Amino acid sequence: MDPTARIETTLDFALRAGEAPLGPPRLAAAIRHAVFPGGARIRPQLCLAVAQACGDDAPEVANAAAAAIELLHCASLVHDDLPCFDAAATRRGQASVHRAYGERLAVLAGDALIVRAFQVLATGAVQAPDRLARLIQTIGAGVGTPFGIVAGQSWECEPRVVLTDYQRAKTGALFVAATAAGAEAAGGNPQAWRSLGHWLGEAYQVADDIRDVVADPALLGKPTGQDQTHMRPSSAKSLGLCGAIQHFEKLISAAIESIPACAGAPRLRGMVAIESERLVPKVWSQEVLRDAGLALQRLAPAR
Amino acid sequence: MDPTARIETTLDFALRAGEAPLGPPRLAAAIRHAVFPGGARIRPQLCLAVAQACGDDAPEVANAAAAAIELLHCASLVHDDLPCFDAAATRRGQASVHRAYGERLAVLAGDALIVRAFQVLATGAVQAPDRLARLIQTIGAGVGTPFGIVAGQSWECEPRVVLTDYQRAKTGALFVAATAAGAEAAGGNPQAWRSLGHWLGEAYQVADDIRDVVADPALLGKPTGQDQTHMRPSSAKSLGLCGAIQHFEKLISAAIESIPACAGAPRLRGMVAIESERLVPKVWSQEVLRDAGLALQRLAPAR
Repeated sequence: MDPTARIETTLDFALRAGEAPLGPPRLAAAIRHAVFPGGARIRPQLCLAVAQACGDDAPEVANAAAAAIELLHCASLVHDDLPCFDAAATRRGQASVHRAYGERLAVLAGDALIVRAFQVLATGAVQAPDRLARLIQTIGAGVGTPFGIVAGQSWECEPRVVLTDYQRAKTGALFVAATAAGAEAAGGNPQAWRSLGHWLGEAYQVADDIRDVVADPALLGKPTGQDQTHMRPSSAKSLGLCGAIQHFEKLISAAIESIPACAGAPRLRGMVAIESERLVPKVWSQEVLRDAGLALQRLAPAR
Repeated sequence: MDPTARIETTLDFALRAGEAPLGPPRLAAAIRHAVFPGGARIRPQLCLAVAQACGDDAPEVANAAAAAIELLHCASLVHDDLPCFDAAATRRGQASVHRAYGERLAVLAGDALIVRAFQVLATGAVQAPDRLARLIQTIGAGVGTPFGIVAGQSWECEPRVVLTDYQRAKTGALFVAATAAGAEAAGGNPQAWRSLGHWLGEAYQVADDIRDVVADPALLGKPTGQDQTHMRPSSAKSLGLCGAIQHFEKLISAAIESIPACAGAPRLRGMVAIESERLVPKVWSQEVLRDAGLALQRLAPAR
């Protein structure tokens, strides 16, 4: 089965386990709305790609790790979209969960998704039970306190914040969990794969900042200009658009260089390059540089 | 160590694991506010009592199960108190988390507590790793979809609801998880202990409905009259106060009778009786019956 099919099947199976004729139907629908249709599924793809690079000797465990990470990511999107945070009306091209099902079901759907993620891990770990505890710790650290994505989101509520701490926790932590858990799920060495997650996570956050300024909301499936609206720290703000794009390209290079030597390395390098182009197309940096050049020409005194 | 010390120490240790000088301080404070000072800690007490009745051969696992259940209970209180649900200003005699730290940190504190609960389980399970997967499934089922406390809370958002389905999920499910996980943590048979959790959970929910009508808010540490205010299903409403108190007493008897024969049975029976008196003091039923008698006398024609 190809990685996309593995991910979608495991996610569907995970949600079915929480659906029952006598359970609350609107909550079940809200949860499904939060997970399907998916976005790029970059975190679970990354998790599976690393598991494959490490031999993929327990595919059920790898599928579970990938699905758990995606469920936790979906939970964070549902809660980040709530009226008290971004009050986002759309997500992945459809109404956000709180817009479609109300605020209360959005809170509960996020909670249920977090719980389901750990249940999925426990179910998948039947194939290699000795890997379960470490997978929970790795993935838990990527999500919870003090340095996971929940902690990252909470930096928006602190009076003082360091941009790198915020970005590392808000986005980077789950990428690190994805690569480390992918290795752990396949009996590999998680430490060797943390750097890839770290660099990609940072690149992804910078790309998000850039796309919040540059991209078309219809293309993103969510509103743009959110960092400005919510006065959030943003690398596009602190480095300028041109600086942010250059920074993004450096991070992608660092990610590619960090990939440990292994049979799966070429495939992973290709995957990172494709993802980079999807996030911040090369044509954007050319356009920004051209615009910057035109602006300089306009500023230069006429000879 | 006595059960209370075991619970409080494990909870404190669990929160410390999420606190770090470089982590977000307000989130850490909000999480601590949600867990300390505690309420009666009835669920973890019940979990430990069952573990002890089953031999308590892996106390670290039992402590972890008890603490995980309490952390999940605290998470549900924080989210239930949010403005979109009860908008409760107080909880356990102090400001609710959203009143003290704002709505955003209340959402995130609840999320972080759910994650932490599973991390605590993974840490404690080092003493008996083969029990981890089943503990996650048992506790996850008590919290998530389709029949856990999150599903229970969501019945308030459904157009049609059966009172028993609502109560069983909203409160009963975590009591069942507490007794079953207590048995599992000690290598016992969880099936034999589910009934105790079931009856106690139902009794607790009925007691909550009664206390919402009868008790003093200062005594409860939270506002009363919430069921009426939020138009929630309530046994005090459907059975009348007198009927609800009689129903409560029947449920407590069923709980006591369900305790499997074992060395710890007398201690558990005593614990249930004490808890029953704490929840719905006998003097209340006497008062309600006396008032009902007076009302009947007033209705009777003068001879």
